[in-house]
Amino acid sequence: MGGLFITLEGGDGAGKSTQIEYIEKFFKEKNCVVVCTREPGGTRISEMLRNILLDKGNAEMEAVTEMMIYAAARAQSVREFIKPALARGEIIICDRFVDSSIAYQGYGRKLGEMVSEVNSIATGGLRPDITFWLDIDPKIGGVRAAKTGEPDRLERENLGFHYRVYEGYKKIAEKEPDRVKRIDATGSIDDIRKEIRSYLEELGTR
Amino acid sequence: MGGLFITLEGGDGAGKSTQIEYIEKFFKEKNCVVVCTREPGGTRISEMLRNILLDKGNAEMEAVTEMMIYAAARAQSVREFIKPALARGEIIICDRFVDSSIAYQGYGRKLGEMVSEVNSIATGGLRPDITFWLDIDPKIGGVRAAKTGEPDRLERENLGFHYRVYEGYKKIAEKEPDRVKRIDATGSIDDIRKEIRSYLEELGTR
Repeated sequence: MGGLFITLEGGDGAGKSTQIEYIEKFFKEKNCVVVCTREPGGTRISEMLRNILLDKGNAEMEAVTEMMIYAAARAQSVREFIKPALARGEIIICDRFVDSSIAYQGYGRKLGEMVSEVNSIATGGLRPDITFWLDIDPKIGGVRAAKTGEPDRLERENLGFHYRVYEGYKKIAEKEPDRVKRIDATGSIDDIRKEIRSYLEELGTR
Repeated sequence: MGGLFITLEGGDGAGKSTQIEYIEKFFKEKNCVVVCTREPGGTRISEMLRNILLDKGNAEMEAVTEMMIYAAARAQSVREFIKPALARGEIIICDRFVDSSIAYQGYGRKLGEMVSEVNSIATGGLRPDITFWLDIDPKIGGVRAAKTGEPDRLERENLGFHYRVYEGYKKIAEKEPDRVKRIDATGSIDDIRKEIRSYLEELGTR
């Protein structure tokens, strides 16, 4: 189908945005068409759902509801935006994807297996070609993220929740080492860049 | 768990609202606590999702997205509202439930089996004690519904869609005759009432 679907994963404060900018630049220098997007979001309807998800006023939201709304937003962006762009041969860089749901709702909220089931329906089986997991201890990530402003509904969760999310990411990375590349996010921005660059160059020669 | 969970199903213009009022009155006269609700809706978060679903401006909504948003709204109302009320022994009368998703998204939008899978997760397995399917030919129902105002996003679908929905309801009724009671909705309001009343009295003697 052409195209390349790259996702970035990790807790808050892991430095995803900085690396997304870098990956975008990497491909633009090679004259590729690159599109950056985020989850939940990327389409008009997905952004409406994003507002409901992140609104601090929605404290009564049930875990299953949360998981379903993320899946709905994803179903829309996959079909309306990601799949057509991939079919045109473009490179999509996405800030979070299904792994976030498995880590945050499956492990963090303890919903378990149902998260994969619902999401495989939502994505119609679409999977990233490569995923960079920016691995950082939740305690350090939390301190970094706190500096960037008011926390949203999920960022407000306690440290126990964020450690379960972390365990989730670890399990995903162990299960799919070919797709998920663990990057030590405690290193310098330059070190992280170099590591990501080496994976990207490897992709180019596949 | 006590309580009684009654749902009404059927195409637009079948007369659900009128019969819901009647069922409510029937139980109030017996001094029961009765609560009427509707789907999607019934809780603050579900109503937010309802607005996205029925907004005519959201014409680009994908079928899977639509199905997931209905499931999200349902997950919330089941946990926040319906289950607690049933546990208190109350009687819930709900305008549409999972059968609507199976009929409209599963058959109407041709999504098939995935609708049941996602919804059994959304409801945590909660099923109505009894469901009244107000059976009316989509052509007649459509004419009746058109008199009640501006059609929403789903009501605007073509007649082929509404016939597939109708086939869906027929299949559900055939599959679960103990739960789903087919009511001929072309009869007079009084005839429909009498038929429903006989089922309700039967319930009372269970």
